[in-house]
Amino acid sequence: MDDVGKQFKWVGTRPIRPDGVPKVTGRALYGADYHPAGMLYGRILRSPHAHARIRSIDTSKAAALTGVKAVITSADFPEQNFDYIGPERVAVNFWHQTRNIMAREKVLYEGHAVAAVAAISAKIAAEALALIVVDYEVLPHVIDVDAAMQPDAPLLFPDMITRGIEPAPTKPSNISKRLEFHIGDVDAGFAAAEVVVEQTFKTAAVHQAYIEPHASVARFDADGQCEIWCSSQGHFAMRALTAQILKMPIGDLRVHAAEIGGGFGGKTVTYLDPVAALLSRKAGAPVRLTMTREEVFKASGPTSGSSMKMKIGATKDGKIVAADGLFKFQAGAFPGSPVMNACLCAFAPYDIANARTVGYDVVSNRPKAAAYRAPGSPISAFAVESTLDLLAKKLGMDPLQLRLKNIARIGTPTIYGPKLGHAGFAETVQALIDHPGYKAPLGKNQGRGVASGYWFNGGGDSSATMQINADGTVLVATGSPDIGGSRASMAIMAAETLGVDYNQVRVIVADTASVGYTHVTGGSRVTFATGTAVVNASTNMTKEMCKRAAMIWDVDPEGVIWEDGYAKPAGTNVGNFTPLSLREIAAKASQTGGPLTTAASLNAGGQAPGFSTQFCDVEVDPETGKVTILRFVAAQDVGRAIHPGYVEGQIQGGVVQGIGWALNEEYIYDAKGRLDNAGFLDYRIPVASDLPMIEAVLVEVPNPVHPYGAKGVGEANIIPPMAAIANAIDNAIGRRLTELPMSPPKVLAALDAGPKTA
Amino acid sequence: MDDVGKQFKWVGTRPIRPDGVPKVTGRALYGADYHPAGMLYGRILRSPHAHARIRSIDTSKAAALTGVKAVITSADFPEQNFDYIGPERVAVNFWHQTRNIMAREKVLYEGHAVAAVAAISAKIAAEALALIVVDYEVLPHVIDVDAAMQPDAPLLFPDMITRGIEPAPTKPSNISKRLEFHIGDVDAGFAAAEVVVEQTFKTAAVHQAYIEPHASVARFDADGQCEIWCSSQGHFAMRALTAQILKMPIGDLRVHAAEIGGGFGGKTVTYLDPVAALLSRKAGAPVRLTMTREEVFKASGPTSGSSMKMKIGATKDGKIVAADGLFKFQAGAFPGSPVMNACLCAFAPYDIANARTVGYDVVSNRPKAAAYRAPGSPISAFAVESTLDLLAKKLGMDPLQLRLKNIARIGTPTIYGPKLGHAGFAETVQALIDHPGYKAPLGKNQGRGVASGYWFNGGGDSSATMQINADGTVLVATGSPDIGGSRASMAIMAAETLGVDYNQVRVIVADTASVGYTHVTGGSRVTFATGTAVVNASTNMTKEMCKRAAMIWDVDPEGVIWEDGYAKPAGTNVGNFTPLSLREIAAKASQTGGPLTTAASLNAGGQAPGFSTQFCDVEVDPETGKVTILRFVAAQDVGRAIHPGYVEGQIQGGVVQGIGWALNEEYIYDAKGRLDNAGFLDYRIPVASDLPMIEAVLVEVPNPVHPYGAKGVGEANIIPPMAAIANAIDNAIGRRLTELPMSPPKVLAALDAGPKTA
Repeated sequence: MDDVGKQFKWVGTRPIRPDGVPKVTGRALYGADYHPAGMLYGRILRSPHAHARIRSIDTSKAAALTGVKAVITSADFPEQNFDYIGPERVAVNFWHQTRNIMAREKVLYEGHAVAAVAAISAKIAAEALALIVVDYEVLPHVIDVDAAMQPDAPLLFPDMITRGIEPAPTKPSNISKRLEFHIGDVDAGFAAAEVVVEQTFKTAAVHQAYIEPHASVARFDADGQCEIWCSSQGHFAMRALTAQILKMPIGDLRVHAAEIGGGFGGKTVTYLDPVAALLSRKAGAPVRLTMTREEVFKASGPTSGSSMKMKIGATKDGKIVAADGLFKFQAGAFPGSPVMNACLCAFAPYDIANARTVGYDVVSNRPKAAAYRAPGSPISAFAVESTLDLLAKKLGMDPLQLRLKNIARIGTPTIYGPKLGHAGFAETVQALIDHPGYKAPLGKNQGRGVASGYWFNGGGDSSATMQINADGTVLVATGSPDIGGSRASMAIMAAETLGVDYNQVRVIVADTASVGYTHVTGGSRVTFATGTAVVNASTNMTKEMCKRAAMIWDVDPEGVIWEDGYAKPAGTNVGNFTPLSLREIAAKASQTGGPLTTAASLNAGGQAPGFSTQFCDVEVDPETGKVTILRFVAAQDVGRAIHPGYVEGQIQGGVVQGIGWALNEEYIYDAKGRLDNAGFLDYRIPVASDLPMIEAVLVEVPNPVHPYGAKGVGEANIIPPMAAIANAIDNAIGRRLTELPMSPPKVLAALDAGPKTA
Repeated sequence: MDDVGKQFKWVGTRPIRPDGVPKVTGRALYGADYHPAGMLYGRILRSPHAHARIRSIDTSKAAALTGVKAVITSADFPEQNFDYIGPERVAVNFWHQTRNIMAREKVLYEGHAVAAVAAISAKIAAEALALIVVDYEVLPHVIDVDAAMQPDAPLLFPDMITRGIEPAPTKPSNISKRLEFHIGDVDAGFAAAEVVVEQTFKTAAVHQAYIEPHASVARFDADGQCEIWCSSQGHFAMRALTAQILKMPIGDLRVHAAEIGGGFGGKTVTYLDPVAALLSRKAGAPVRLTMTREEVFKASGPTSGSSMKMKIGATKDGKIVAADGLFKFQAGAFPGSPVMNACLCAFAPYDIANARTVGYDVVSNRPKAAAYRAPGSPISAFAVESTLDLLAKKLGMDPLQLRLKNIARIGTPTIYGPKLGHAGFAETVQALIDHPGYKAPLGKNQGRGVASGYWFNGGGDSSATMQINADGTVLVATGSPDIGGSRASMAIMAAETLGVDYNQVRVIVADTASVGYTHVTGGSRVTFATGTAVVNASTNMTKEMCKRAAMIWDVDPEGVIWEDGYAKPAGTNVGNFTPLSLREIAAKASQTGGPLTTAASLNAGGQAPGFSTQFCDVEVDPETGKVTILRFVAAQDVGRAIHPGYVEGQIQGGVVQGIGWALNEEYIYDAKGRLDNAGFLDYRIPVASDLPMIEAVLVEVPNPVHPYGAKGVGEANIIPPMAAIANAIDNAIGRRLTELPMSPPKVLAALDAGPKTA
């Protein structure tokens, strides 16, 4: 990292974001904004039952309706191998995946797709759905994770044997797997502990609540080639998933990334694309499928709800000596909750010699869980960071000091193997200790809470191409859908590396046939991995421009260096030439060998993990139980902020979502297993008027494995808020809330009946 | 050219064309098939007059009509410098160009654009056009090229002084420039000639008659960034032209290439794109503009009509010793006919020691001429090759033997400087001499004619990128719109170079932000220039795959070679490894450094010229004057045919268009200068029932400057047919027709009144 400490021209500045104007003026094209000629309107028939066997589906009347061009059911999809892993860097059980996209033997949740139609109008498509006759045998259902783990629970998969238990159980259950991680000797650790705290917790399933519903437009040619326009966090992933679900060669599928209206992990999954493609293939015309908000809630992934148990032991001076966590996660209707991440992240911020985490992945009659910002970690952190607060109280220690005392540093072993390789956590804790607000006095019914969070941050495959136009403008194409401002950060890094004005650089998200493979926009990986690809493409370009300058000057290419946007003679022995700007070299590209283009791809391994520490002040209304957030300060190690405005936005966004999890959001089911609140009126996400300004504190500990020190910043911020708020509520009213959301009824109930803590 | 004589696996085969199925099933998306959300419908108001001053335009009523979102006139376009040459490899007089796109001071032809509207429906847009009040002062007009050159002709540009004359004329005229080229001493040559023939000729303006009318969809963001979907022969050229016309940075404009339904040169020009962009900017919504067929005829470029004079002298044994050509070309309403090409190509196939060509570029009140397949050369060839036929008759020589005797060979000097560098012409003449049909007997009213043609073939800037997917499928992206089958030929060359199956390779035409600059699909340059870029990208990829194999085997990259689709140890000293296929290496790309991507750009420089020699048999109906083509044999030097089926298609297509020029096609004007036949019912292009099977004879003389020996094949074929048919008619009925089209009335008139030739 040669650049640490160096002043940059563009890195760290806040230029105008290139996606801003098209978005606020309504001219950006989202997934549902494509309308190729002859397009048909698709609709999906969904299960009204939480759990039922499909005896038969009669689509004949729907197919016969005038204006209907295609009707499909699961019978139109190829069967998949169990536990098949796709060819292109997606590890998915496609046997499950295809059944989630279109129910086969059974429907497993209300809203589960059963059939789909394409028609010449949305109205006719809706009429056709009503003509499809599904003969269901309704089965008993189970919603709650603890209930689903009971031996007599209704089974979603009658032959599912829990993996990860030796010897393997003989009886099937809803538990798809058990995980266990440990370090040291937990029993010995607790034996040595002088203070032990123990607590159970529950969290609710919450939805990613992106504003743009899923949408996909597909055009399938009769020769097997298909083109899709969709809103997703990764059009390469949509290509890989769709190709495998339809058993097509990857080369036959081209996916275009539409502008995306939020994803937060939930748009790393495909729901519509294979259905739209299959409808298009059958209908012989392009087909658009969009979800209603109700469909988004009922049939796209929320994150897991959970049931957890936490036990932590420490010496009297606050050194944690043992920790034990049990995490039971709802996977939804198919295996695959983020319980492993929960197990791995739970104690990762701390240096605990003896620790164990045990996780269960449990199916129930809910939509299949999907990734949601730092998947798993916010859930386990709610348990860990609440329990640490209990410990701090018991020890009479400041909770930030407790964390600082036990903090993981470079070289600290982790529960999952490798030692921590990057600093940054201690700096976030210290930033809050030093924050004037942390010492500010509080009023009646007010309390302050702190919590921390840990997230891996991802790397992986990314690609970029670069072209210099004849007028010196610069085009950058990457494969990363821009959700958190990557067009701006890529332009900043390209401008910095090339030495040109930010406003000369335009960045696009290219389709899957136009740029190299790029993994999803997720795992806080884009600025790190795709950013490195862009910097590499830029560096290759400066080398190419030095060659062109050498050609113009008729000197050896080694005699030319690139500096601040100019090709310059490397030394006086090269000759006395006036430096050539990028623009001057670009104008002569055709005469010096042709267009200026470069490409770069890499597997960006080993990013540094992200740390976040937050405190918040709340006031609890004892009459209503309503919790008001008075102040929220979120410190995060961001490596180096490429565009600080976006980084602050990421932190603010993560905190706001965490506040939603903490106080309001939950999936509410009726007795028949039907979702009661599938809409934004009843599923309440925080809006601006609910919130104070979230103060983001950017802690910059440059990441040594990124050319400009950038670190993933998208996820660590959502991990602490739930515990921070619970801890603040406890400090405000002396009641420990252990179940999310901490909505007014629960707070009132705690006030009325709960034991006063501490 | 290492590969000459080598057997190829894919080069030279006829696999299924990738564009075929989407086109015949109607699922290909052409320019008018895009419909972004919120799209408005644009319409252009056009002049009803051939020539008029615009006193004023009142758009207020149109702008006030409910549903109208924007109205623009030339006042909305920035003014341009005279003779400005754009930054990006387009040499255009933008002062003229912007006036052709939207008339300013005057309208110069019927159909000239005057104003444009965008509205929420096509109907409202049409209503709005009717509400625009233009106050015209109608001026005298001139249509014919000879009339336009008269001293008293109405002037289109009252200050236009003919360039290329020393000293410069003092009086303005409609002649924009005079050109002269010569070699040797023409007067001395004619003095030495024993036989001299002399003849005047006229050709009609003919339209490229692509089946798909022009269409453009633009979306202009409020921050100045614009995206265009259009059907063109070069979306990079449309970007360059539009950016300059609107004075935007090139980087702010992204152009997507729609599928194209024919161009033939006529879609290298922009008409709609800047108008759609400006309407979109003003309206704040995407706008689609399409032309009707009538608009295509009246306002997009036909090629020039001409008036020519030809004089050729030879010795009695048939050696041509002098040639003199005069070419007066209609430029249409703005300067810029292809008269220079006519001057350069006219005598280029022959070794003539003393030759001169003089050309005039003349404006008149017609749509501005645009490129049309080998622009200029078919016109001058009609004169040259007809006159050679007169000469052969006078000498009593077989016309093919006459050509063979005078043929240009490697090293023959050209009228424009460089010596001919490539063979191929003699081989096409010999191919016809050897063709059994050339000796076949003819019946009554039947005749056989021969003619040849020469075309430069273009090179220039092209770019390509390549990706290998995890399943081993290969993606190739180029910047060349596919008109003549380039997706197939690129896939063939990529498959050949990589050593994989053709069906594993998919080729797309990427947008201007996703691939490097690529010049238009024109000048028969794509298989040559873009093909070389694809081969280079493929070669780079085999090198990269060798590196990856070396990594897998843990050996030096130099120890690995690429052969027939496999990485192999270079020799026994490297070790004993099982060769790795492309697919196996692709599956491990992520573990060996990341995605497999390459990019290649080049300025392909001097391609070898193209030669064509054809003979045809005709029968003339003496009652009606109708000419029926009985047989048509077209030999062409194709370098090496990458996909012979497409090459044959190119030859057949060029010949058919030539037959249309020869027999039927022409622009017919009424006394007011209004086009009388602006539709396919009255402007008659040949249809299948008019034609015999065109026999294409592929003469393969591999092009040494292309990796697989390919040569441009798209244009040379349209050059000979007009003269071949005129010569055949002469042989059938003893009448020399010198004016195109040789339609039944003209043939009848010749039969009735014309002198019997020879």
